[in-house]
Amino acid sequence: MKEENDMTRSYTQLEKRFKRLNVLGDAASMLQWDMAAMMPKGGAESRAEQMALLATLRHGMICDEAISDLLDAAESESGLNDWQAANLKEMRRAHTHATALDEDLVEAISRTTSTCEQVWREARPQGDFKKIVPHLKAVLNLTRTAAAAKAEKLNCSLYDALLDQYEPDGKSALIDPIFDRLEGFLPDFLQEVLDKQKDVSFKLPKGPFEVEKQKQLGQLFMSALGFDFDHGRLDVSLHPFCGGTSDDVRLTTRYDEADFTSALMGVLHETGHALYERGLPKDWRHQPVGQARGMSFHESQSLLVEMQVCRSDAFLKYAVPHMQKAFDGQGEGWSLDNFTKLYRQVKPGFIRVDADEVTYPAHVILRYKLERALIEGQMEVEDIPANWNDAMQNMLGITPESDREGCLQDIHWYDGAWGYFPTYTLGAMTAAQVYHAAQEAVKGLDGQIEKGDFSGLMGWLRENIHGKGCKLSSNDLLTHATGKTLDPEVFIHHLKTRYAA
Amino acid sequence: MKEENDMTRSYTQLEKRFKRLNVLGDAASMLQWDMAAMMPKGGAESRAEQMALLATLRHGMICDEAISDLLDAAESESGLNDWQAANLKEMRRAHTHATALDEDLVEAISRTTSTCEQVWREARPQGDFKKIVPHLKAVLNLTRTAAAAKAEKLNCSLYDALLDQYEPDGKSALIDPIFDRLEGFLPDFLQEVLDKQKDVSFKLPKGPFEVEKQKQLGQLFMSALGFDFDHGRLDVSLHPFCGGTSDDVRLTTRYDEADFTSALMGVLHETGHALYERGLPKDWRHQPVGQARGMSFHESQSLLVEMQVCRSDAFLKYAVPHMQKAFDGQGEGWSLDNFTKLYRQVKPGFIRVDADEVTYPAHVILRYKLERALIEGQMEVEDIPANWNDAMQNMLGITPESDREGCLQDIHWYDGAWGYFPTYTLGAMTAAQVYHAAQEAVKGLDGQIEKGDFSGLMGWLRENIHGKGCKLSSNDLLTHATGKTLDPEVFIHHLKTRYAA
Repeated sequence: MKEENDMTRSYTQLEKRFKRLNVLGDAASMLQWDMAAMMPKGGAESRAEQMALLATLRHGMICDEAISDLLDAAESESGLNDWQAANLKEMRRAHTHATALDEDLVEAISRTTSTCEQVWREARPQGDFKKIVPHLKAVLNLTRTAAAAKAEKLNCSLYDALLDQYEPDGKSALIDPIFDRLEGFLPDFLQEVLDKQKDVSFKLPKGPFEVEKQKQLGQLFMSALGFDFDHGRLDVSLHPFCGGTSDDVRLTTRYDEADFTSALMGVLHETGHALYERGLPKDWRHQPVGQARGMSFHESQSLLVEMQVCRSDAFLKYAVPHMQKAFDGQGEGWSLDNFTKLYRQVKPGFIRVDADEVTYPAHVILRYKLERALIEGQMEVEDIPANWNDAMQNMLGITPESDREGCLQDIHWYDGAWGYFPTYTLGAMTAAQVYHAAQEAVKGLDGQIEKGDFSGLMGWLRENIHGKGCKLSSNDLLTHATGKTLDPEVFIHHLKTRYAA
Repeated sequence: MKEENDMTRSYTQLEKRFKRLNVLGDAASMLQWDMAAMMPKGGAESRAEQMALLATLRHGMICDEAISDLLDAAESESGLNDWQAANLKEMRRAHTHATALDEDLVEAISRTTSTCEQVWREARPQGDFKKIVPHLKAVLNLTRTAAAAKAEKLNCSLYDALLDQYEPDGKSALIDPIFDRLEGFLPDFLQEVLDKQKDVSFKLPKGPFEVEKQKQLGQLFMSALGFDFDHGRLDVSLHPFCGGTSDDVRLTTRYDEADFTSALMGVLHETGHALYERGLPKDWRHQPVGQARGMSFHESQSLLVEMQVCRSDAFLKYAVPHMQKAFDGQGEGWSLDNFTKLYRQVKPGFIRVDADEVTYPAHVILRYKLERALIEGQMEVEDIPANWNDAMQNMLGITPESDREGCLQDIHWYDGAWGYFPTYTLGAMTAAQVYHAAQEAVKGLDGQIEKGDFSGLMGWLRENIHGKGCKLSSNDLLTHATGKTLDPEVFIHHLKTRYAA
């Protein structure tokens, strides 16, 4: 980047334009965080105007005709190095997605999803799926229209065009065999784990647990893992998330005074996202190639921290004494053994976001199949509840009593985020595979973690994952770091070792 | 505004463009608040890029040639109502200021003030004025060049062109006789007050005072005054300010655990600013005419609350029992009489921001005279310290030992904010005059305030000041609300009544 300042080159001009786009995106991201974590409710209306304007300005910047010409010209220029070439590829991808839809369609989608989401907020607590049907149909229709427009440009199927928005180069043809393998494995395995856990009991430590103390404990672990509070904050919001920018990462969580264990794992999960953001290549900070590789990799980094590391024996040995100290906890409920059982409980349930790592994939596979069938026109919106409930019964052996605990639970479809769901489980499997590779590469990793030393792990992640940005495709990045493409057997091995050994 | 949606009209197109400009300004304002109140230090570099980009985008929007054409066309269109006509006038003013300077000059000013400010941050603690001289000269030169460019467009003197940025239509020819009257009055009056207060003693209540309790007390008074926490927040920053937007006002303060009385008055001062912002005409929210009238009026609203209301007998009668209750304060230092003496102490000092309302005008008049002489080329930068010290001796009878407590204390000149200083004292006088009018208009106002009921006062302010936005000039607004133009005798009468009766 430094060596290439010749503004007569199209590539260099593109870098300048994409930097503005990215900086404006950073501004929007900070305002988004503020909206969730700080803004009083009376600020909502004017904030919505600010967010809409920033989105419009960004859309205008990327759809500027000059960008199209510059991309064509840059693609025939010679002399780009690997990073620059990868950057140009990501610029093209962003441009293709942004320009695929005409303004009327973008506006119709925005209006329709906004209405649908509002109706969903009423329909969900009432478990009233019928109420949402016409709105969801409208959203689905527009989503299919958008998918068709993108599919034509990307030369792929409707579903893959949607998936590509969250998981660049993701293909259902690659996901299908992987999810099939999991779906075949899970029912028997789940039964085995449930049988094994039948007589396992644990106690939830008794509160109340002061919010300030919970926060301090979370910050202690965040710092140990490598989170730099000179470049980020931890605050509270209704729905926990990792926002802000790579140089100023804003995490949020939600505390429950009766139970600190859940918010704590939530904080550690978001810390995984945050460390990925912080570790992205600084030299490419405001360029497309300097961003996270996609939602599967992002989720893999949060799950690597939460599931692979923080529910491991090594981590709990390190962490439990700090928990005891933070809350002056002793006796029943405060032993290492108890926390290990608590953090490894497997229990089929209706709600995805509350699921353990064994049953979680079932929730995702169910949604993936249904949303593909809906997008591909093989299923009608009216048939969602029946199909949902059948699948839950088949995979987890339970049937929700109300759509509130079934097909109305997630915002994604109602909000227009189709093609997003598979990234959760792709992320979980990627996490297992990456962590397995890290354990092979970093000598004595478990011993380090037991002592609260995460520098070996984080150094390896920085070098092999975080610091790569979007230089490689997801597939190449994983292969480069772990020696092979996504292999469900690594995740299955992890589950077997942790839950059925 | 509602009746006028014909986009073939130039005026209507201008409204649309200025709305975008304002909404983008709101976004920048929220990020500015975050920078002061929330941002970890590592976020500074990327935030600076965000702020610079937003400023560039806004500058580009207002300097767009289309605006110039639309303004010309709109000014010859007929059928604008009073609000629209006033709005158009403010659009023209904003456009004139924005386009007066060419890009190179804007960039040179930005670079030079930024360097000067950095050097000032080192020079101030060392009291080393010599170190800053070349940088301040560079800033002054560019400021004069900018003033000349604006003066030509506005057809006024150099100094008035700078003043106009903060105080639209402000003229030194109007300020001079007013400040002369004050300058003539103050020395003898100050001596009279000092003689009177010679034997007055008070105690500072003994702390420590928990920050959380100080905050709650501040919020109690804020709510009583009419601050709506659904449309704003109170947080902490190094330099207290009132920021955010009219629908989401973000106040900050700084607490001292050893003394709650200072931060409390600071909060009340910022609350005055906030109530003005909240009371601006909602129908004109994102238009130039819907903004605050200028810095004198803004300062008048903070000083009306802090000085006129909150240091009055009536307010203290209401407030002191709440102070006692908040901190369980009793005995020495906690009586109404003690707080009255504490909040009315007059004492000449070197530092403007610590000054009481009797000596404050001397600090401002001194700066006003020096900055005019510098801008008009009648004084050299090297001569600032000697002239400063002479004036302090003449007006307040004290001479600073170091420039640290003299001409290096304020950021304004070093940061390029020339022409700002007079608005502090114009604001103080406006506050006295407006409050005097409110007392005449609202029957039994003191009695209401004693009971913590501020609705009568705030209702009057909303109707006569806040809700007018920029519909009238400062002069007309004051005349409309109080029956006359700015009259120093009202302020003088207030000082005499409070301090020498």
